[in-house]
Amino acid sequence: MKKELKNTNGLYPSLTTLVGTVVEGKVNFLTIAHVGIMDMKQISVSLNKSHYSNAGIRQNKTFSVNIPCVDQVCKTDYCGLVSGKSVEKASVFSVFYGTLKTAPMIQECPVTMECRLVKTIDFPSHDVFIGEIAGTYCDEAILTDGKIDAGKLHPLLFVMHDTSYWTLGEPYAKAWDIGKRERKHRG
Amino acid sequence: MKKELKNTNGLYPSLTTLVGTVVEGKVNFLTIAHVGIMDMKQISVSLNKSHYSNAGIRQNKTFSVNIPCVDQVCKTDYCGLVSGKSVEKASVFSVFYGTLKTAPMIQECPVTMECRLVKTIDFPSHDVFIGEIAGTYCDEAILTDGKIDAGKLHPLLFVMHDTSYWTLGEPYAKAWDIGKRERKHRG
Repeated sequence: MKKELKNTNGLYPSLTTLVGTVVEGKVNFLTIAHVGIMDMKQISVSLNKSHYSNAGIRQNKTFSVNIPCVDQVCKTDYCGLVSGKSVEKASVFSVFYGTLKTAPMIQECPVTMECRLVKTIDFPSHDVFIGEIAGTYCDEAILTDGKIDAGKLHPLLFVMHDTSYWTLGEPYAKAWDIGKRERKHRG
Repeated sequence: MKKELKNTNGLYPSLTTLVGTVVEGKVNFLTIAHVGIMDMKQISVSLNKSHYSNAGIRQNKTFSVNIPCVDQVCKTDYCGLVSGKSVEKASVFSVFYGTLKTAPMIQECPVTMECRLVKTIDFPSHDVFIGEIAGTYCDEAILTDGKIDAGKLHPLLFVMHDTSYWTLGEPYAKAWDIGKRERKHRG
């Protein structure tokens, strides 16, 4: 039996990130779980227009997307609780840069990406910034055979329904593979 | 120590969905984990231009986004293995409709959304379709106090790095709350 929940957004869990920017010359970090994958090399972050970071992305045409792990939950949530308008967030983490000089990345995050702004979509309450990934930097400790190992990443998965961060569980099945059983079954 | 992984997309895990369409009068379902949240009521799905579903979304200006659970992993993966060009996928699941008559939804999926196409973004290899959620339908069994309970949902979280579906773990901390400790600590 289905229950109608009006137009509730049911697209959760969503990966929690920290978006790094330089705004008015200052490094800033904002917690964003409203993200998206556009194609293999382009990703989106959705920022309410009230945020301080938006102007920095517009000005520099760059931003970073950092994936925090469970150990960083307090600092991650803090960056979503306070605004760069009134609070200096540059010192919350150790900052490093890649090739883009205005996309500050977070040393403590196991996966970080620096992005070039390629498109901005204007929604009534949100700016959706689409960035092309210019460089990806990972802790060696989370790699297995040179690839990111989700089991070592310990990401924070955000669920709006209970406004909570959840952990990742276990690998369950191989994609483009487990479905072969159904294909065989259907003949 | 950070290792540079060129421009690897590190924005995983991402939620696995089944996108429902009507193409040339036939119901079709396609497995898509490259999704995004644009704002509270608008979501995106990214479809490689080679897919059969794209024409249906363009024609009807509607699509559905269905969240399968772990029990449906074989059928879900199957819908990503075979193309609606050559295989009839309408009978893989039980279909129902909401207010939009060309956005077929999946009875077996615990959460389903019917969407009106509001924008299409043209990337070289992908069409990104942005839909406004017109209606959301959930199994009563996965609700707690009238809200979707992620712990009852058992979604499939896709990771490209190992091309696997992962399970969701446990709630870890409250958002807009756990960070208050850091705020207090920083004064």
